[in-house]
Amino acid sequence: MSTERLIYLPLGGAGEIGMNAYVYGYGKPGKERLIVVDLGVTFPDMDTTPGVDLIMPDITWLRERKDQIEGVFITHAHEDHIGAVSHLYGELEAPIYARAFTANLCRRKMEERGHPVDAVTTVSAWPEVTKLGPFTIGVAPMSHSIPESGALVIDTAAGRVVHTGDFKLDPNPLVGEPFDPDMWAEIAKDGVQALVCDSTNVFSPNPGRSESELPDEITKLVAGCSGLVAATTFASNVARVKTLADAGERAGRSVVLLGRAMNRMIEAAKETGVLTDFPRTYSAEEAGDIPRDNLMLITTGSQGERRAATAQLARGKYRGLELKDGDTFLFSSKTIPGNERGVIYIMNQLSEKGVDVVDDRGGLYHVSGHANGPDLERLHDIIKPKMMIPMHGEHRHLRQHAKLATAKGMASAVVVNGMLMDLTGDAPKVADYVETGRQYLDGSVRIGALDGIIRDRIRMALNGHIVVTVILDEDDEPLGEPWCDVRGLPELGKSNAALVDILEEDLNQFLMRAGAKTLRDDDKLEDNLRRITRQTTRDEIGKKPEVSVIVSRMR
Amino acid sequence: MSTERLIYLPLGGAGEIGMNAYVYGYGKPGKERLIVVDLGVTFPDMDTTPGVDLIMPDITWLRERKDQIEGVFITHAHEDHIGAVSHLYGELEAPIYARAFTANLCRRKMEERGHPVDAVTTVSAWPEVTKLGPFTIGVAPMSHSIPESGALVIDTAAGRVVHTGDFKLDPNPLVGEPFDPDMWAEIAKDGVQALVCDSTNVFSPNPGRSESELPDEITKLVAGCSGLVAATTFASNVARVKTLADAGERAGRSVVLLGRAMNRMIEAAKETGVLTDFPRTYSAEEAGDIPRDNLMLITTGSQGERRAATAQLARGKYRGLELKDGDTFLFSSKTIPGNERGVIYIMNQLSEKGVDVVDDRGGLYHVSGHANGPDLERLHDIIKPKMMIPMHGEHRHLRQHAKLATAKGMASAVVVNGMLMDLTGDAPKVADYVETGRQYLDGSVRIGALDGIIRDRIRMALNGHIVVTVILDEDDEPLGEPWCDVRGLPELGKSNAALVDILEEDLNQFLMRAGAKTLRDDDKLEDNLRRITRQTTRDEIGKKPEVSVIVSRMR
Repeated sequence: MSTERLIYLPLGGAGEIGMNAYVYGYGKPGKERLIVVDLGVTFPDMDTTPGVDLIMPDITWLRERKDQIEGVFITHAHEDHIGAVSHLYGELEAPIYARAFTANLCRRKMEERGHPVDAVTTVSAWPEVTKLGPFTIGVAPMSHSIPESGALVIDTAAGRVVHTGDFKLDPNPLVGEPFDPDMWAEIAKDGVQALVCDSTNVFSPNPGRSESELPDEITKLVAGCSGLVAATTFASNVARVKTLADAGERAGRSVVLLGRAMNRMIEAAKETGVLTDFPRTYSAEEAGDIPRDNLMLITTGSQGERRAATAQLARGKYRGLELKDGDTFLFSSKTIPGNERGVIYIMNQLSEKGVDVVDDRGGLYHVSGHANGPDLERLHDIIKPKMMIPMHGEHRHLRQHAKLATAKGMASAVVVNGMLMDLTGDAPKVADYVETGRQYLDGSVRIGALDGIIRDRIRMALNGHIVVTVILDEDDEPLGEPWCDVRGLPELGKSNAALVDILEEDLNQFLMRAGAKTLRDDDKLEDNLRRITRQTTRDEIGKKPEVSVIVSRMR
Repeated sequence: MSTERLIYLPLGGAGEIGMNAYVYGYGKPGKERLIVVDLGVTFPDMDTTPGVDLIMPDITWLRERKDQIEGVFITHAHEDHIGAVSHLYGELEAPIYARAFTANLCRRKMEERGHPVDAVTTVSAWPEVTKLGPFTIGVAPMSHSIPESGALVIDTAAGRVVHTGDFKLDPNPLVGEPFDPDMWAEIAKDGVQALVCDSTNVFSPNPGRSESELPDEITKLVAGCSGLVAATTFASNVARVKTLADAGERAGRSVVLLGRAMNRMIEAAKETGVLTDFPRTYSAEEAGDIPRDNLMLITTGSQGERRAATAQLARGKYRGLELKDGDTFLFSSKTIPGNERGVIYIMNQLSEKGVDVVDDRGGLYHVSGHANGPDLERLHDIIKPKMMIPMHGEHRHLRQHAKLATAKGMASAVVVNGMLMDLTGDAPKVADYVETGRQYLDGSVRIGALDGIIRDRIRMALNGHIVVTVILDEDDEPLGEPWCDVRGLPELGKSNAALVDILEEDLNQFLMRAGAKTLRDDDKLEDNLRRITRQTTRDEIGKKPEVSVIVSRMR
């Protein structure tokens, strides 16, 4: 009979940045009791997921083991860690655990989707622990770009695992707890079986910088501005929002928070006591009565999101506020790869209005929330784990991080989504490969990444769409002529006649000549009509369109 | 009667980076003789131009003044300056002038599209000049990231204009002429009416770095590699390709150029004498017989282009060559904003193969081809123009560059595409606004950016497409039931029945109840069918699809 084992299985977040979802298990093979760490989303883009609303991990494996799940722990409230919780709750129905600020935001999400808010339990920070089945789990404070980020300290009979969540080594994060090397040394002192560790910034060669390096520069910048000042950052970066607000207040400006997420985050931070001395804020309506030179707007949309406050201000008025020549707009943020075009578009719209755009100026007005290469090594040195498993990174990050660990004598492995690892021994061992993937929230429906629906959308976008309709009478003879609906394609082709006319003529020619055998056979008829449509379109306009053929028989 | 004037009109490249096309004119208003400087393309993306092959400037204004055009000058052979020449030649039929290397590449393009290669005239560098109507035009060498980039020195009775083209101040560009401050001082000594100047890197605060700073580092890197070494850069950066090839040769590796553009560029550079001592190269077939540790591949596709050699090597085999664990891949390039996702995707594919990816490491293995802020000021100081017109930049670049000039006492203005400027006086004056825009090459057809075709493609990609077909008999009564073709949408909605069935039922219900007045009225009928289709789809799956309605009457 097989013995108990400790397993680790990433379902999202390992081999990508985003959509974090990790599973730990302890027990006899196949009978493990499970805990889930984070259930995040990732965001769609036009290139690969047009029209999709959200991307979530495929949790089929978990759903099939629903009864084995002890609970879901959320390390922090960034969307790539918390975003799928309420969407997937109905399938897992497992209790959710998080620290107060994260739990507050999680309950809001649960409520929005009609799930019970008391499924969310607030836990206190380490050294308090939660016992669930074979697990004893503590949430130990880690500094990050959001309050109350927590690393999990997971104890089982197979030893201690530290799952870092997202972190940086910030001695003074301004809001929330600093990184505490003594606490971590204490946690690690009896040995750590496995450190499962954030890899995002592994390629950054210098030690990371503290949030506390920014207020002086930001205050100086805002103090030197005339006109209206606006600034954007991630709403969840409560410390940064506070720094911006403080800078505004110090410059004698009234602070206005714009955007739903911005207001919700600050509200949650105040409600949970994370944020105590935030400047008085004014509503957009109140701002109308304040001279614009005395305003400091703090807005959502630092990544160029089209519906966020920043994009709306760049386009024109937003809630009665408008930017003008001589105003200043600060991007206190870094652009996430892939969002450059959207952000640059907004910067140019602002430039057209005469607004001076200030970006992070190579770090003067922004610091990262993740540990850099040397910081990762410092944590390795404090924790001294038997094995180090890199997570929260693309393949190249995981690979580099694993190299780093191996070079220092730790066991390590590049573990990507779907690799079920046995962490019980001296080194991580692959125990199984689990089918994983992505599912999409599309409107109100969940679809699979491989359902072909998105592929069809992409093809229509690249090639246009032609629908050919043919009606046949009771004797399988064409009833009238075929007709085409052409969408997303040029009207005129090389014959200088309407493409649709040429298509209909070619299709009609074919139908008139087609034998009874072809006309009777749906598949044959459709294949021929499709082939002719593609060929004629290619001749006329040099493109091979997507073609739907509808054969309707009057029987 | 009005006097003669000097005009400047950007049709592309001013307010954007890409698609350069500038017009200068001299003569009486409306009767000016014209020269065109550059006819470039810009590249489509899925967000805004799905399915499009190339983006070119709308040259309606020029076409309508075809008889006034003296010639087209191409400053250098980057696609955003030369790419549209052969596509638009048929409409302008104006002679083309360029230096030897640029002319060589231009002739290849003309030939490919069946245009006369003798429409392209090779001109020698300054002080040689070409006289065309009221213009005397010289092409003065400028250092850039391609050989033989030239600034134009355009003399008319209204004074001298210097149009920089793309440039940097490189004292040692390795291939091609260095920046020559003495020549430029000489050109400027009798006064320059207007400097029309590259703005790309205006936000870079430090002086630019020379191409000559790279060979040592690249040589060191390649010398330290075991396994196969591959490197990618822009094919047109002949100096860089040579540096990479030299580094390979010095490390005892056989050099293989992969990708059509790479081979074509090196061929053109050799043919025109720009490149004299390039290492011997081997074909992909020959490489098969060489130990892989002795190979140095230099590949196209530094921007992640899916069909280029780099992407193909990352996916699998390319012309018999394959990358493996322990190989090294150098990106000797910077990722152009918007291309990050594609490049990162490839880097991760390489990582999965065990290949060590080396990027530009913050400048160690790449330098920019454009003048930075301080370099621009240095050129201003040498040329001392009466007015400085920023070009080759997004709005924010032009604005910053104009500020720079104004602060130093030059007249300046932010001039974007379509602003027809009178440069005759002491300061640039807006003389007219010209309708400009973009046109797309889509398959073999040219379409306008505002034709609605691309908008339809984007909508189908975001919302899916449903085609509703209804047949009515001679009495305007429905003949059979309506049917729907659904594409790019989930099959099942909230009723857990097929969306298409529910739609057809709802539409049939409507038809059965519809009065004769509605059934007789095409518009009314279509509106109703569209409305029902959208409403039902929204209820079922939470999306509002694109809907085409086809009403066919058996008359």
